[in-house]
Amino acid sequence: MKLSNLGEFGIIKKIREKTYSSKEVIAGIGDDAAVLEFNKKQFLLYTTDALVENVHFSLKYFKPWQIGAKSIEQNASDIAAMGGVPTYAVVSLMLPENLDTKFVDELYSGINKTAKKYHISIIGGNISKSKEVIMSISMLGIVEKKYIALRKGAKKGDYILCSGNVGKSAAGLELLKKNKKGASIKNHLEPKCRLGLARKLVKIGINSMIDVSDGIASEITHICNESGVGAIVYADKIPISKNTINDAKLLGKNSLDFALYGGEDFELLFTAPKSKIKKLTKLGASVIGEIADKKNGIKLIKNNKEIKLRKGFEHF
Amino acid sequence: MKLSNLGEFGIIKKIREKTYSSKEVIAGIGDDAAVLEFNKKQFLLYTTDALVENVHFSLKYFKPWQIGAKSIEQNASDIAAMGGVPTYAVVSLMLPENLDTKFVDELYSGINKTAKKYHISIIGGNISKSKEVIMSISMLGIVEKKYIALRKGAKKGDYILCSGNVGKSAAGLELLKKNKKGASIKNHLEPKCRLGLARKLVKIGINSMIDVSDGIASEITHICNESGVGAIVYADKIPISKNTINDAKLLGKNSLDFALYGGEDFELLFTAPKSKIKKLTKLGASVIGEIADKKNGIKLIKNNKEIKLRKGFEHF
Repeated sequence: MKLSNLGEFGIIKKIREKTYSSKEVIAGIGDDAAVLEFNKKQFLLYTTDALVENVHFSLKYFKPWQIGAKSIEQNASDIAAMGGVPTYAVVSLMLPENLDTKFVDELYSGINKTAKKYHISIIGGNISKSKEVIMSISMLGIVEKKYIALRKGAKKGDYILCSGNVGKSAAGLELLKKNKKGASIKNHLEPKCRLGLARKLVKIGINSMIDVSDGIASEITHICNESGVGAIVYADKIPISKNTINDAKLLGKNSLDFALYGGEDFELLFTAPKSKIKKLTKLGASVIGEIADKKNGIKLIKNNKEIKLRKGFEHF
Repeated sequence: MKLSNLGEFGIIKKIREKTYSSKEVIAGIGDDAAVLEFNKKQFLLYTTDALVENVHFSLKYFKPWQIGAKSIEQNASDIAAMGGVPTYAVVSLMLPENLDTKFVDELYSGINKTAKKYHISIIGGNISKSKEVIMSISMLGIVEKKYIALRKGAKKGDYILCSGNVGKSAAGLELLKKNKKGASIKNHLEPKCRLGLARKLVKIGINSMIDVSDGIASEITHICNESGVGAIVYADKIPISKNTINDAKLLGKNSLDFALYGGEDFELLFTAPKSKIKKLTKLGASVIGEIADKKNGIKLIKNNKEIKLRKGFEHF
């Protein structure tokens, strides 16, 4: 069987079942970052994520500094989704040998500027030849034990919230591919993670969280699978910006599809008890549904009708 | 200017000068692993290294499990070179979509078997499409503060030692490329890091250490540059196995060149004061030279004559 038949999450499931782990791990494969014992009050967070040319970015659209910046945002978003603060990163860089050295300068200016913004120290790395431009970053973070947010904490009756507009990066990508112009393009080229907001959310008190990197459909499925619950999501409550709606129209596409099945928005999807909703929505988050019993499955409601959820973005 | 003109270490130098780091770091870019404050008695070690198809391995020679095993050995070797014990790793995997799922199974059997051998827990990762098979691993480790071994600790008068036979992996690679047979092939396909030995060395007391991943010439240069010293290396003292000598003959090559300029032996090069030499050589290490004043430079002596050292293996 080819990898393309098994699918990304099929491959991950296969790997997860077999992977060797003997030590005590608070959370391992299956969350945005691994969670390790650190000291009395804090956990250590540990994640890795890659950007691959012609998969995650095209050099036709992306400036080198934008690739560097996005690689840091992407990993910081994983740390944010755990409720933590990123601290250190190492960069594994694979580059074609005929690339100009200016490319590396600009790439690193994006890495450094973004790392500085979040006070992340780049403390190591490695460099190798390759056919395509690939950046694989690994990042460490710290989170107070009382603030840790896992995918598996969602409880029946929790409200499901989304931190901000989604579908914007996918709309931007589609514009770029079709050689059209629109406001969403910037959302694709220069996404920003919600680190500051995530810290506020965990201090208010939430039950589970994930970052929106593969679309709402994929993320709510992860939360439900890890928490052993079901969910009802209301399509018309999902926050989508006017820009994204306009750009979708221009493309003859449905903006809801971008929100559900698009990737790389780096917003946060999280669940919280009713008592916290007022404080959470004051920060700009939108209630988009409720956590239900597992046996209800995951339902998407649009105009009072149930729509079948497809899977989110998969790499294979 | 192209990356291939600047060279691997030129690129790293460029990156190092610019990289953002605000936090306290015991050692960052420029050692085998970054060294971070962890607790009263221990440092946290953090490294990353990648294996890229057609750069570090060819699928013509390598079985998938050997690639998986080598990726763990390679990163564990970086932790060993700091005197530490590896603990956790995350795996960033990039694979062509037409690859068979059996390939991933076998790759992970190599990863898991090797991780288990060293008690390293694989606790996360990420997977993406790519044109070539690429594994970028990041690894954490722990080292007692009293045992930390840096590149920068070498002192004038130190003896330079090598943990075991070198040049064996490069000889194996050359045999494979020339479609010849020989004992060194196994050294290339299945290298083993010297984790157990490294722990014994730091407990005896050494001043500096590096793993031999790019050849003796490259590693002694790193030790000297980081420590601000010079060195005299005696070519005939460098440990080279009979197998490597025979395989070099078969290839019409000089085995010393393999030792000086070859890569991926994962032995250890280290320096120690005279008082420790007896204990260190009992463990199988060979004295291959002495640390000298910086102004002497790095000299290689063969048959009482000085030979100019070329640079070791570079990726660009």
